Amino acid sequence: MEPDAALKIIARGTEEIITEQDLKQKLASGRQLRIKLGVDPTRPDLHLGHAVVLRKMRQFQELGHKVILLIGDFTGMIGDPSGRSKTRPPLTLEQTRENAQSYVEQARKILLQDEDVFELRYNSEWLGKLTFEEVIRISAQMTVAQMLEREDFKKRYTEGVPIGIHEFLYPLAQGYDSVALEADVEMGGTDQKFNLLVGRDLQKFYGQEPQVLVLMPLLVGLDGVEKMSKSLDNYVGVSEEPAVMFKKLMRVPDAVLENYFRLLTDLSDEEVAALVEKGGMVGAHRVLARLLTAAYAREVIPAWLDRAFYESLGYRLEEAGRDREPQNPEDAELARIVAQAEARYDEVAKGGVPEDIPTVEIDPAELKESKIWVARLFSLAGLTKSNGEARRLIQNRGLRIDGQVVSDPNLEVTLDKPLILKRGKDKFVRVALASEDNS
Amino acid sequence: MEPDAALKIIARGTEEIITEQDLKQKLASGRQLRIKLGVDPTRPDLHLGHAVVLRKMRQFQELGHKVILLIGDFTGMIGDPSGRSKTRPPLTLEQTRENAQSYVEQARKILLQDEDVFELRYNSEWLGKLTFEEVIRISAQMTVAQMLEREDFKKRYTEGVPIGIHEFLYPLAQGYDSVALEADVEMGGTDQKFNLLVGRDLQKFYGQEPQVLVLMPLLVGLDGVEKMSKSLDNYVGVSEEPAVMFKKLMRVPDAVLENYFRLLTDLSDEEVAALVEKGGMVGAHRVLARLLTAAYAREVIPAWLDRAFYESLGYRLEEAGRDREPQNPEDAELARIVAQAEARYDEVAKGGVPEDIPTVEIDPAELKESKIWVARLFSLAGLTKSNGEARRLIQNRGLRIDGQVVSDPNLEVTLDKPLILKRGKDKFVRVALASEDNS
Repeated sequence: MEPDAALKIIARGTEEIITEQDLKQKLASGRQLRIKLGVDPTRPDLHLGHAVVLRKMRQFQELGHKVILLIGDFTGMIGDPSGRSKTRPPLTLEQTRENAQSYVEQARKILLQDEDVFELRYNSEWLGKLTFEEVIRISAQMTVAQMLEREDFKKRYTEGVPIGIHEFLYPLAQGYDSVALEADVEMGGTDQKFNLLVGRDLQKFYGQEPQVLVLMPLLVGLDGVEKMSKSLDNYVGVSEEPAVMFKKLMRVPDAVLENYFRLLTDLSDEEVAALVEKGGMVGAHRVLARLLTAAYAREVIPAWLDRAFYESLGYRLEEAGRDREPQNPEDAELARIVAQAEARYDEVAKGGVPEDIPTVEIDPAELKESKIWVARLFSLAGLTKSNGEARRLIQNRGLRIDGQVVSDPNLEVTLDKPLILKRGKDKFVRVALASEDNS
Repeated sequence: MEPDAALKIIARGTEEIITEQDLKQKLASGRQLRIKLGVDPTRPDLHLGHAVVLRKMRQFQELGHKVILLIGDFTGMIGDPSGRSKTRPPLTLEQTRENAQSYVEQARKILLQDEDVFELRYNSEWLGKLTFEEVIRISAQMTVAQMLEREDFKKRYTEGVPIGIHEFLYPLAQGYDSVALEADVEMGGTDQKFNLLVGRDLQKFYGQEPQVLVLMPLLVGLDGVEKMSKSLDNYVGVSEEPAVMFKKLMRVPDAVLENYFRLLTDLSDEEVAALVEKGGMVGAHRVLARLLTAAYAREVIPAWLDRAFYESLGYRLEEAGRDREPQNPEDAELARIVAQAEARYDEVAKGGVPEDIPTVEIDPAELKESKIWVARLFSLAGLTKSNGEARRLIQNRGLRIDGQVVSDPNLEVTLDKPLILKRGKDKFVRVALASEDNS
């Protein structure tokens, strides 16, 4: 592929490339480039926020380059202070290794793991051997003032929130990783820019050609405001059940929908604009949900999440519905999975009850004259965390029994037949009295 | 010795002890204490400024404790940033070892070097083996804010003078030295207080009893203003020729004379006050000069530079002059050395020419009709660095020939017999024409 064409693929959706000129030269060299991604092994649950960077790595692989997934098992002991408001407790080497294994397992869904385009490395390999003398030499390459220019450090320092000296060693260690790996490109979110620039400086100090930085925007979560993260519960996991993934993607706020297309699919901006024009926001949501549900239902997502992949499921991009059967059994199976998830979504949306909801059996001992307090019932069903939460939800008209809104928080429910409990729009549990034989 | 008596000896002349209570407890324990002095091996010329701390170490030895001279051959690679206005260039391990050898050699004059009270260690022994992991663990014990509280760092940071990250590792490395040595006491100048406190913290972190800090004031140099240092040329070396040491000590500014007594001798404040009362400032200067010239003329200075030592030279502390002969040949030899230095000083003070001045032979080719330009003559004699300096000194009436002030910078001097050249108060050179046979 021509360097310009490759550059165009890589540049799509990036926030910043430092520098495009350097990247173009590297792409033109004809060499297989070494693309580094440093992974902080403290949060092992991969979601679509991670997928933004991992898919860009995958594109490098599709272009023939080698991806190096660098598990920061050693730096994990320090804890990356980037964007954090306080010092993290250091992890042990063992804890970081455990977390890392889970990360690699999940990343298989996006990254090819054939050894000609993939390398898995742990930075304890070289950082564990680093002498104090070398640490001093590396440390001398940066000043305190440069370090305190980092937004998060500056803020913490100004506000009097402690910064451990060991946290200053983090960007240096991460930069040294690039030296050890002889990285051509390092990828990361925009919040990693500072750390990645240190890698460039240290490579120069060690006489290497400095790496190119490819920085991706941070994906906004389902709340439309915060960066996607598990702890904020605004995420879509890469291994969600198809029905859950479909449902969550239908909830992506309109304001960020185009961004999701740009960062998570290979549909062009024009194709997305046309989708919205023809099918409205709901129609565009459906395309996104189908595309990603199908892609992530596969063991490894396809190379390109584009029109061809979408149409291989039997849809046409320009039309709302499905008009034909996929041509091969594998695609047909994917299409079936997507259709099922979508049907479930539609069923619930129009007030129906899906078939595959869980049943919870209630111990007869909980009942008094065949009755049970409504708050207690929802809590036993696992739909509320406490009776107090159930009360609050009832006040907000958020709980239903057999489709009827519960309005009385003191209601005594007669449980003489199975009931369908519902919380909010899409959480269902069937409750039934446990038979005396089983109790 | 009772702990209280020992504490009194140690406390004399100190600026601060952290804490006296801790020190008293350690002294009362009956154990042989381990007294650490960290030595930065970048400036090998020992002067009386160093002697202040080394003599206090010697006092610990005299009380039966073990002194550990810790050569910072490893930390020398970082360069102690204490009180420095800019980052020092790191030294190599070899350079630091060379400098250290010279330090140890000179310290023999003050410290006993028998192995029951002396240990010589190099911190590369443990710091060279320190892993990055351990460095991280240690670094986590201090915050950036704590580090930037240090006066010199704060000043540099505020003024925008770069501080290398490696300089933050210095106090930590030095603190870790105390852990490795299991130091009971660490000594230093007041400018080392911050570094020494880090040692206390790290010892606690490693489960050790924290060391006591014994901080000595910095000795003011002969200019009466700046800290004594070789680079400011306001110093008295511990290995000066007796005549030079005597002469320099007679120049100690009156304002700091009592301080010299307190930090460099064991005469009590009362004894010193009596000296000044009876003999005036000049008389007190003579006592200081005799005492220190005699002490440092020995291979190893005596344990206590007190009345007994002074009187062993044949003087009485209360009287100006000498009234008897020392009782043993060794003391007699010291007394002779001091008397000679004093006589030379007195001879010069009253305008005389000492006997032992160097002769410089002038090549007849330098002469034109038996004459030579005065500036050229002083420069050939080595008394001025250049003809320009000679001109300036002549304008200030600072040069003499055979006792006569030179006032004409263009003077042509007839060199038909040896002449005595003099610069300032006490620099003499005899010049003579080299015989034709030798030229």
